Amino acid sequence: MEFTARQIAETLNGKVEGNPDVVVSSLSKIEEGKPGTLTFLANPKYTHYIYETRASVVVVNENFHPDRKIAHTLIRVKDSHTAFAELLNMYQKTKGKKTGISEKASVDPSCKTGKDVYIGDFVVIGKNTVIGDRTLIYPNTVIGDNCKIGDDTCLYASVILYDETVIGKRCTLHSGVIIGGDGFGFAPQEDKNYKKVPQIGNVILEDRVEIGANTTIDRATLGSTIIRKGVKLDNHIQIAHNVEIGENTVIAAQTGISGSTKIGKNCMIGGQAGFAGHLVIGNDVKISAQSGVGRNIPDGTFYEGSPAFPLRDFQRSFIHFRRLDSIVKRIDELEKRLK
Amino acid sequence: MEFTARQIAETLNGKVEGNPDVVVSSLSKIEEGKPGTLTFLANPKYTHYIYETRASVVVVNENFHPDRKIAHTLIRVKDSHTAFAELLNMYQKTKGKKTGISEKASVDPSCKTGKDVYIGDFVVIGKNTVIGDRTLIYPNTVIGDNCKIGDDTCLYASVILYDETVIGKRCTLHSGVIIGGDGFGFAPQEDKNYKKVPQIGNVILEDRVEIGANTTIDRATLGSTIIRKGVKLDNHIQIAHNVEIGENTVIAAQTGISGSTKIGKNCMIGGQAGFAGHLVIGNDVKISAQSGVGRNIPDGTFYEGSPAFPLRDFQRSFIHFRRLDSIVKRIDELEKRLK
Amino acid sequence: MEFTARQIAETLNGKVEGNPDVVVSSLSKIEEGKPGTLTFLANPKYTHYIYETRASVVVVNENFHPDRKIAHTLIRVKDSHTAFAELLNMYQKTKGKKTGISEKASVDPSCKTGKDVYIGDFVVIGKNTVIGDRTLIYPNTVIGDNCKIGDDTCLYASVILYDETVIGKRCTLHSGVIIGGDGFGFAPQEDKNYKKVPQIGNVILEDRVEIGANTTIDRATLGSTIIRKGVKLDNHIQIAHNVEIGENTVIAAQTGISGSTKIGKNCMIGGQAGFAGHLVIGNDVKISAQSGVGRNIPDGTFYEGSPAFPLRDFQRSFIHFRRLDSIVKRIDELEKRLK
Repeated sequence: MEFTARQIAETLNGKVEGNPDVVVSSLSKIEEGKPGTLTFLANPKYTHYIYETRASVVVVNENFHPDRKIAHTLIRVKDSHTAFAELLNMYQKTKGKKTGISEKASVDPSCKTGKDVYIGDFVVIGKNTVIGDRTLIYPNTVIGDNCKIGDDTCLYASVILYDETVIGKRCTLHSGVIIGGDGFGFAPQEDKNYKKVPQIGNVILEDRVEIGANTTIDRATLGSTIIRKGVKLDNHIQIAHNVEIGENTVIAAQTGISGSTKIGKNCMIGGQAGFAGHLVIGNDVKISAQSGVGRNIPDGTFYEGSPAFPLRDFQRSFIHFRRLDSIVKRIDELEKRLK
Repeated sequence: MEFTARQIAETLNGKVEGNPDVVVSSLSKIEEGKPGTLTFLANPKYTHYIYETRASVVVVNENFHPDRKIAHTLIRVKDSHTAFAELLNMYQKTKGKKTGISEKASVDPSCKTGKDVYIGDFVVIGKNTVIGDRTLIYPNTVIGDNCKIGDDTCLYASVILYDETVIGKRCTLHSGVIIGGDGFGFAPQEDKNYKKVPQIGNVILEDRVEIGANTTIDRATLGSTIIRKGVKLDNHIQIAHNVEIGENTVIAAQTGISGSTKIGKNCMIGGQAGFAGHLVIGNDVKISAQSGVGRNIPDGTFYEGSPAFPLRDFQRSFIHFRRLDSIVKRIDELEKRLK
Repeated sequence: MEFTARQIAETLNGKVEGNPDVVVSSLSKIEEGKPGTLTFLANPKYTHYIYETRASVVVVNENFHPDRKIAHTLIRVKDSHTAFAELLNMYQKTKGKKTGISEKASVDPSCKTGKDVYIGDFVVIGKNTVIGDRTLIYPNTVIGDNCKIGDDTCLYASVILYDETVIGKRCTLHSGVIIGGDGFGFAPQEDKNYKKVPQIGNVILEDRVEIGANTTIDRATLGSTIIRKGVKLDNHIQIAHNVEIGENTVIAAQTGISGSTKIGKNCMIGGQAGFAGHLVIGNDVKISAQSGVGRNIPDGTFYEGSPAFPLRDFQRSFIHFRRLDSIVKRIDELEKRLK
């Protein structure tokens, strides 16, 4: 399919700068742009590529001011990142969607499946489970008894849902995601053995949740582990029993949240961060990668360190940590002078 | 099913305080307790909820002293955490157990399966593998050749056991657990390529081991990687080749143990901790979350930090690290005064 | 099978010291050596075992100088680690290889499979996918549409390849590896929701790549996430979208690389390390375990810390950090004296 810059600008509600009749047929990265492709500039780190790229059209923010002349056509939009996401979306939709229930799947007769679902080969679905309309379940995924999955949700290959898991609408679970395994609960005994605390709760994912490959979310001991609407979890994340994660919070890869911790709305949490159990983290909180959070955190703050404390304080301390050798030499010097 | 406080107290060997005839029919969390439910108080952090909870009965430790009057019935027991685990256990047993071998499983004819086993759909079991009595193997799990699995063990969906894996009695392996993948062993060559060191050992899990979702345990290069009886591993843990973990040691999520390290008995290891290879860690050792252990650790000690050193020392250093900016200002001041 | 020390020395191109006619029939670890077995000494930490081991033959480096008399036969070779890997290799080859396509697999008719492939039970292979000669695909692995897998590659049980994944020759992917899941890309909206950025690129693995259990590699937003030839990745590693990893770089378990970061050739990266996005890491770089890399790193350097800085500087700072309490006491003392 071929489009002119003008046609794309109309779709994106943007303004063309340069030749509006130039034709593109695919998408490219700005640093690898080729003639006949459209690319975009969103991350300021990549600004220098706009002068070199061989792409024919570049989507930029409306307030972008080039330092030099640019040969190719620009399309100015309010938010180039979102605009490009729209184009990628249009491109992806041309691929089409799978439908139909494989004869090689094992779906319990008590299971209710919605309209136009896809259920792949060797999928197993347990008793009394309900699958929404247009939901996609890729091969080798295993869904337990008494689960509910909403409309327009996608479970990629080899996802595991334990019994009683509830998943909302328009969610995406990538391969290897495991929802509803037992929380890590053991009562220490006098003979130093541990006695398992059975975990009889479940996991609830609200609407529009996306979960990355191999992430695990444990079922609650009692009640529910809850992931609120719009939450985005990256790969290899560990969510323990009875955790609750607030709306639109995003968490980067390999982070772990210990049992019963509540995380607020609209938080941004870096990768490889860790949270102790039974904490309350506010709304709009930011946590740097690799931080270790051991205390409650108020709304709207930014923490770093292991253990974590406010970012500014951490940065000040860390600057001195890097120079600790010269600081100690200053003390040596002071002691010498005082002798 | 309905029980009176008196009946439950008898089961738990506890004493009723308040109305012994109040009836409960399910279990609840103390902060979400509803009339007609039974809850418990074990974590002191949650003590304030006992004055607010709407649960009808609360199981508490025998030495619990309320500050105020409590309206609902208490059951005093020696250890409320263990008592509650028992109740959860009784509740869970009412669910019943799966049995029978699915016709959709692929079990090699040379495999020996015990009495009353459950083998789910699309399970694959290799040659000469032995499965104990009453053992449960959920769908899509793959077990290699020459494995041995003891009685009353449970492998949830999509567990992978490589050839020659040995698993004891009463173990639980959650979904995504991978036992017996190759250890990470490569010999550097002069041309900067690496030559694979074949890993011809195996993995042995003794009795009553529980392993969380997506945890991996690599086979030994030679001999065995060994997890001793009663060990509890959380989710996303990495156990490298030839590691040995002592009896009743518990390890929290996302921790990694490098090759050939031996960990003692009754240790408690926090989440996201890391251990270098070829170390000897004593018995009764505690390691804080996110610590990086690079040296042998003696019995009965508590370490923190990356690299880790004794906890008290770490805490003292860390207090000063947080205030490093003001410490440096004191040095500035001293230098000024000396001029 | 039995071999004399002389026969093994000939195979390894080594020199016998002691009785060349002693016979061995299996391999052992030096600390667990038994009569009739052959072992090796490579790690200097294990040198003391050579005086105690009951193994009949020990393979050592040609420059090894014992402190005391050694009773058993030695075989001196250029590099004992590589020599032992060769012996393990020979031992492993006696096990034989699987071949044949299971009738229980679901292979799309448009898929092209090479000579002597093995495709296990409940494997799913999508449309237009090409599988090379002698490639092994273990049970319950799922391969998407339009994938290419080279000759002599091995995918263990329950590996997931999303559509368009390209894998070279002589690669090994362990169980639970997930290649080609969506990169973690979301554009923030004014209403605090996030809009998914579709990920339409793919993942390319060149030849001789080995990937450990449960490691994930995300597809590129556009273009390809690329793992160059000879790269070795341990278990539980996270490789984000558009990352590139240079030839013969080795990465230990649980490390994470954020989006668009490029890592050079011949690097050695410790476990649980993290890399921010959009970085350029040079060739021959070493990174300590648990480091957090937030900046570009030049060729041939060694970094540690979170955030990471040059190793020597880190070590100097860390020595003082451990003693920070006594350093602050020295400042207290100076202030007292000045009063």
